[in-house]
Amino acid sequence: MIKARVTVTLKNGVLDPQGKAIEGGLGALGFDGIGSIRQGKIFDVELNTADAEAAKTSIANMCEKLLANTVIEDYAVEIL
Amino acid sequence: MIKARVTVTLKNGVLDPQGKAIEGGLGALGFDGIGSIRQGKIFDVELNTADAEAAKTSIANMCEKLLANTVIEDYAVEIL
Repeated sequence: MIKARVTVTLKNGVLDPQGKAIEGGLGALGFDGIGSIRQGKIFDVELNTADAEAAKTSIANMCEKLLANTVIEDYAVEIL
Repeated sequence: MIKARVTVTLKNGVLDPQGKAIEGGLGALGFDGIGSIRQGKIFDVELNTADAEAAKTSIANMCEKLLANTVIEDYAVEIL
């Protein structure tokens, strides 16, 4: 059993309206000094295999095909 | 300027229908051997301060008040 964490973030330069909304919300709650907030996603994946290299390749494939939109998003795979 | 990454994940035992849907989607795409997938969120926060300790406290407050639903979610703050 291999556990991995996939982190998907918007590429630099891609507008993040959700992050902007959170900035606004935090400002309304009285938090100041916030430079910027950008939101991303994580996926905690468990694979029934013992081969870390194969798992990494398989997860990168999943990212390309489903988990990330590689036009506007970057992804990183970390084996835990 | 301090950069931090906030990771928000569902607590153990909390149902994750979005993760289940992704499992189903990956299965339909031909990926097998998937034990489980759980989805979470990240927030990349930039604060206009130089005090890492104060930043950490401030971000923990943001999590309690807005970024995480502490009834069903855990959060972790990592200063980068």
